[in-house]
Amino acid sequence: MKQSLSIVKVGGALVEDASSLDAVLEAFARIQGPKVLVHGGGRTATKVAEALGVESVMVGGRRITSAGMLDVAVMVYAGLVSKKIVAALQKSGARAIGLSGADLGCIRSDKRPVGEIDYGFVGDVKKVDAQALGMLIDKGIIPVVCPITCDAAGQLLNTNADTIASCVACALAADYDVSLVYCFEKSGVLADPQDENSLIRRITRPEFEALVADGTVQGGMIPKLENAFAAIAAGVGKVIITKADNLGTDVCTEIV
Amino acid sequence: MKQSLSIVKVGGALVEDASSLDAVLEAFARIQGPKVLVHGGGRTATKVAEALGVESVMVGGRRITSAGMLDVAVMVYAGLVSKKIVAALQKSGARAIGLSGADLGCIRSDKRPVGEIDYGFVGDVKKVDAQALGMLIDKGIIPVVCPITCDAAGQLLNTNADTIASCVACALAADYDVSLVYCFEKSGVLADPQDENSLIRRITRPEFEALVADGTVQGGMIPKLENAFAAIAAGVGKVIITKADNLGTDVCTEIV
Repeated sequence: MKQSLSIVKVGGALVEDASSLDAVLEAFARIQGPKVLVHGGGRTATKVAEALGVESVMVGGRRITSAGMLDVAVMVYAGLVSKKIVAALQKSGARAIGLSGADLGCIRSDKRPVGEIDYGFVGDVKKVDAQALGMLIDKGIIPVVCPITCDAAGQLLNTNADTIASCVACALAADYDVSLVYCFEKSGVLADPQDENSLIRRITRPEFEALVADGTVQGGMIPKLENAFAAIAAGVGKVIITKADNLGTDVCTEIV
Repeated sequence: MKQSLSIVKVGGALVEDASSLDAVLEAFARIQGPKVLVHGGGRTATKVAEALGVESVMVGGRRITSAGMLDVAVMVYAGLVSKKIVAALQKSGARAIGLSGADLGCIRSDKRPVGEIDYGFVGDVKKVDAQALGMLIDKGIIPVVCPITCDAAGQLLNTNADTIASCVACALAADYDVSLVYCFEKSGVLADPQDENSLIRRITRPEFEALVADGTVQGGMIPKLENAFAAIAAGVGKVIITKADNLGTDVCTEIV
């Protein structure tokens, strides 16, 4: 039987503020057994970019990573946010290590080809080195993974954190019984979006599609769930959507 | 017989510029066997702080680390400079990992007590976890260590990179036959500061003191050499001062 492993993706907003970071890590600490934390940091990056006069270029509603924006992303994700999380985990006695995809070559990406849109220094994940991550995990270390990757030529690239979480989960699924947890602002999928007590405990793709069709599930929730279903389809054993406060409890929506 | 290990400290200026970084890493690659790189990044930090409007407060000629300056130091040292080095090493096939003292709790520090001067968020190294670093080194991984440490309460702290190099060398000296190499702008100690051919191959403390007394060694070279002699006194097997270009060659001054 494979050892269980929890991979938790927490959004930027939760880890960028000192008080919510403490609450998230307290909840994260409740998860038993080996675990991996994947984080963003977009709000701080936007603030730092603004302060540095680095323009946020948006095309078709999506952010373009210019050379200046890449430097900001590396500073904020791999520097400030990563090390604050690692230091806070350290305080609670957990041995953590902050990783970008460049470290140990653990997440190799390719620069996104220029099509209709040139996304700039954005990387699409090509390969996760499960052995490198497993070596740390098996020593009781918690990898804290930021959304910066690296191509074969040593170019750092900005990469979507939800995708990183999903790719890391898929790669580690061969060696561990992986649970992938996407944290967001609600307890999971709600039958009544206004009522946290209407939590749907298990949801299938046809059910999800019906909820989208009738307007119950909308907005940013749709890509989150698409990501979750993609992870299941790609072989991850268990995918959960929940609120950070609920980490380590069974209050969540399981994607089945 | 203990395995040999090279610990190389390179100043900020050398690793902050893409072309000199490539040259340094090419020279670093010539060093055989296990190795550790310790780097600074002060110039970029000063530039980023200026651009962000974070004031560089100096007291008695020394920089004070305010909360804003600490964030900049973490972003630049542990983020931008660290990951650029790691990515560049990765390109050449070396497996590197960027570490702050918070990662794995590998360098624990205490905030410097407020005396005549309040240095702010500056850490004095208390303990290096040689076992954590050794675990990586023994797997053929190159730790790339930045001058950010962490106290027991999870507070990140700014720490002198020369001191980090020396403390890491001392801690690892129990398990490895350590050579500590301080890179700076000249090939070593020169009998005639204008003539690179007047390199002194071996220097003792009395010889050093005589060179200081007659004005041959002056300025920034004095604290560098004091640091080097301190490392020898603290039990490091071999301490060398040289130019980055000379890494892996015998063109250097050995501190004896």
